[in-house]
Amino acid sequence: MTVISLMTDFGIKDGNVGVMKGVIWKIAPNSQISDLSHMVAPQNIPEAALILARSAPYFPPGSVHVVVVDPGVGTARRPLAAKIGTQYYVGPDNGTITGLLERAEQENWPLEFVHLTEPRFWLENISYVFHGRDIFSPVAAHLSVGVPLAELGTRILNPVRLNLPKPERKTNGWRGEIIHIDHFGNLASNLRVEHLDLLLARPEKLHITLGGIEIQGLVNTFGERPAGELIALFGSTGNLIVSVVNGSAAARLNAKIGDSILVEAG
Amino acid sequence: MTVISLMTDFGIKDGNVGVMKGVIWKIAPNSQISDLSHMVAPQNIPEAALILARSAPYFPPGSVHVVVVDPGVGTARRPLAAKIGTQYYVGPDNGTITGLLERAEQENWPLEFVHLTEPRFWLENISYVFHGRDIFSPVAAHLSVGVPLAELGTRILNPVRLNLPKPERKTNGWRGEIIHIDHFGNLASNLRVEHLDLLLARPEKLHITLGGIEIQGLVNTFGERPAGELIALFGSTGNLIVSVVNGSAAARLNAKIGDSILVEAG
Amino acid sequence: MTVISLMTDFGIKDGNVGVMKGVIWKIAPNSQISDLSHMVAPQNIPEAALILARSAPYFPPGSVHVVVVDPGVGTARRPLAAKIGTQYYVGPDNGTITGLLERAEQENWPLEFVHLTEPRFWLENISYVFHGRDIFSPVAAHLSVGVPLAELGTRILNPVRLNLPKPERKTNGWRGEIIHIDHFGNLASNLRVEHLDLLLARPEKLHITLGGIEIQGLVNTFGERPAGELIALFGSTGNLIVSVVNGSAAARLNAKIGDSILVEAG
Repeated sequence: MTVISLMTDFGIKDGNVGVMKGVIWKIAPNSQISDLSHMVAPQNIPEAALILARSAPYFPPGSVHVVVVDPGVGTARRPLAAKIGTQYYVGPDNGTITGLLERAEQENWPLEFVHLTEPRFWLENISYVFHGRDIFSPVAAHLSVGVPLAELGTRILNPVRLNLPKPERKTNGWRGEIIHIDHFGNLASNLRVEHLDLLLARPEKLHITLGGIEIQGLVNTFGERPAGELIALFGSTGNLIVSVVNGSAAARLNAKIGDSILVEAG
Repeated sequence: MTVISLMTDFGIKDGNVGVMKGVIWKIAPNSQISDLSHMVAPQNIPEAALILARSAPYFPPGSVHVVVVDPGVGTARRPLAAKIGTQYYVGPDNGTITGLLERAEQENWPLEFVHLTEPRFWLENISYVFHGRDIFSPVAAHLSVGVPLAELGTRILNPVRLNLPKPERKTNGWRGEIIHIDHFGNLASNLRVEHLDLLLARPEKLHITLGGIEIQGLVNTFGERPAGELIALFGSTGNLIVSVVNGSAAARLNAKIGDSILVEAG
Repeated sequence: MTVISLMTDFGIKDGNVGVMKGVIWKIAPNSQISDLSHMVAPQNIPEAALILARSAPYFPPGSVHVVVVDPGVGTARRPLAAKIGTQYYVGPDNGTITGLLERAEQENWPLEFVHLTEPRFWLENISYVFHGRDIFSPVAAHLSVGVPLAELGTRILNPVRLNLPKPERKTNGWRGEIIHIDHFGNLASNLRVEHLDLLLARPEKLHITLGGIEIQGLVNTFGERPAGELIALFGSTGNLIVSVVNGSAAARLNAKIGDSILVEAG
C-alpha cells in the first residue's frame, strides 16, 4: 500500500488529474493517492520545487511523488525518475527536484537518477502534450508495485538543477527574498532558522524590513498579537514568514515573489 | 479500513493538505481520506461548525473528522479529540463541534472529550503554526487504527462552544438569518423544517421576506420554476434556502452571511 | 478494489463532495475514488459530457463514473445507471453520456441502460435537491461491490441525448467550434484528427482561422515555439486546440465556447 503524491499546474476543472488517477489505479489498484497541489502557477517550476522539498519529508518511505509542471513536454527535455533518500520522484527533468536535492545533500541521502527510456512501462499511445497521463503516471504506478528504478530506463548522473536564490550575509544580518505567498497571504522567505541562528539569542531585538515597512522582533505564533497586526515568525518548515494576524500580508504590503527582505540585529 | 475526513481553511494551492495525508498514511496506511472542504473562509469557525454538523451524519461509524480552522494555533487553546455518537472529532478546542454537539444532545448520542496531552501520538517536532500536520493528523491516524480515545490525553467535560444564532418566534412566523452561501449562490438560513412545521400545512401561503424582496410560497425543487426565478425551498439538510433557478440568489439579492430572513403565514 | 470517479458542478467549498464519499465508503469501504472535476460550470451538461467522454477510457474496467450536473433534480427526469463498454455511468438521465455513447457506437461497445427505480439501493431519506448524495452515490457503491446493473431498476432503451455541435465539411477544409476552454486558456475545438486526416499530409500548409486571426501550420507541442506565440496543435485527446505558448489563448483572443474555427488547406 504505497503512497503516490501528485502535483501539477493543471488546475482542478478539466478532469486531467482524475484521469491520471485512473491510469495509476489500473496498474496499482491499492496505491493511496494524495493531491499535493494542482494550483501551481502555470509553468512555475521553482514553486513546484519549493512545495516538493518541504512536503516530501512528511511522506512514508517508498512514496512516489509525481510532479508535472512541464513547459517542455514533447520536446527533448528528458522524462526522469529519481530515488532521493527513501522516496521517489517521477516527472520531467527540468529542475523540479532542486530543493529536495539540496536537502538530500545536506543529509547525505542516497541518490539515483534514471532517464525514462523504457516504453513498456508507459501507456501504449504517447501524446505530445500530456506526459503526466501517458508516461509519468504509469511509471509511478509501476514503481509503487515494486518495479526497480533501474529497469525504467538508463542511469544518468546530471539531472537539471535550478539556480534558486540564496540568502546573502550582511554586516549586521541577512538579506533574503520572498519565495512563496500562501493561500492566507503569508509571505515566506528563503531565510531559514539556520541562517538566523546567531541572531536568535534576542529575537525581540531583530528588525525585519520588507517593502519599506519595519517589523520589530519575532513572535512564535499568530495568536500572540491582535488581529490586523503585521508580524514576523518562523513558518512550519523553518522559513521566516511575514504575516498579518487573521489577514493577508500580501495584500497589506502589495508584496510579490522576489521582493527583498532584510533581517538585522537591533 | 476507517474513513478520515479533512476540513481546513488552508486552500488547495500550497501542499499543506497533501502533507497531512502523507502523515496520516505513514501511521494508518489503509485509511480512506475524504476532503470535506479546504475552502472554509480563513479563521471562520462557525462555517466549519456548520459544514461538520451537516456532513458527519452521512459518514460510516468510526469515522474521524479532522477540522483545522485554528486562529489560536500555538497559543493556550487546547488540542481536542472527541467521541460524538459513533464518530470522532480531532482539532482545536475552539467551538468547531458546536453544531454537531447540538445534534448529539437532541439525539442523546454519547459524548466524550479528551484534551490531547500525550505527545507520543504526535510528530516528533511540533511547530507553533501547523498543528494540523504535527498533532491532529497523527492523532486521527492513531484513532483510526484503534488507539482508544482515553489514551490520547486527559478527559475534560467542558469543550468550548460557539454562540450560534438562533431563530426567533414571531407572532405570525419565524425570523432567522442567512448562515451559509454555497457555490451556486444559494442562501441557506438557520430556519429548519422543525421551526416551520406548524406553518407547513399550507406552504403555498407562506411569505418569505429577505433583503426587501418577498417570495410567495415554497417549492420542492429548482426545476419546478423557470430559470431566473427567485424561489424558497428546503435544502438537502432541512434548512430553508433561497435560490435563483439556474442562477445565484447571492448575486441577485446582494446578500451576505447574517442577513435577516422572515417567514410568515399568509 | 473498484474505482469510482466523481464529477459535479458543486464546487469544492461546501462539503457536498466529501459527503458523497462518506456515503460511498459506508457501502463500499474498499473503493478508490477519483475526483474528475467539481468545477463544471453550473448546470453545464455539455461540458460534463465532454470531460466524461475523454476521461473514462483511461479508467480500469469496472470503474463507475458518477456525474451529477443535474438542473432537473427532483423533477420527472429519470435517475439512470448505464453500462457502456466495460464501465458504468450513474447520474441523471439528461444527456451527460452523449459523448461517451458516440464513442461506444464507433467502437461497438455493448450498452445497457437502467432507470433507477429500486429505493432499497438508495439512502433511506431522499431529499428533493441532492440526489448525488441520496441516490447516485449509494447506487455507485452498490455497483462497485458487485450488485448487477439489472437489479437496480427497469431496463430502458432510450436515454436522453444531447445535440452536440458537429464539424461541417467545407470546400477546402472543415469548420468546427470551440467546445472547451481549459485551465491554461487553451481552446479546444470539436475538430479531430479523424476530420482533418486528409489535410494532414502537409500540416505546415494548413490555415487555422479563429476570431479574425489566422495561424499558419500545426505544431506538435508547445515548446517548439517561443513563449507568447499563438499556435495550433492536437491536444492529448485528439482534438485540435489553439494555444499561446506559456500563456492563455482564451485571454489573447477573447474567445468563448461556441466560437467558430476554420481549418483549410493552404
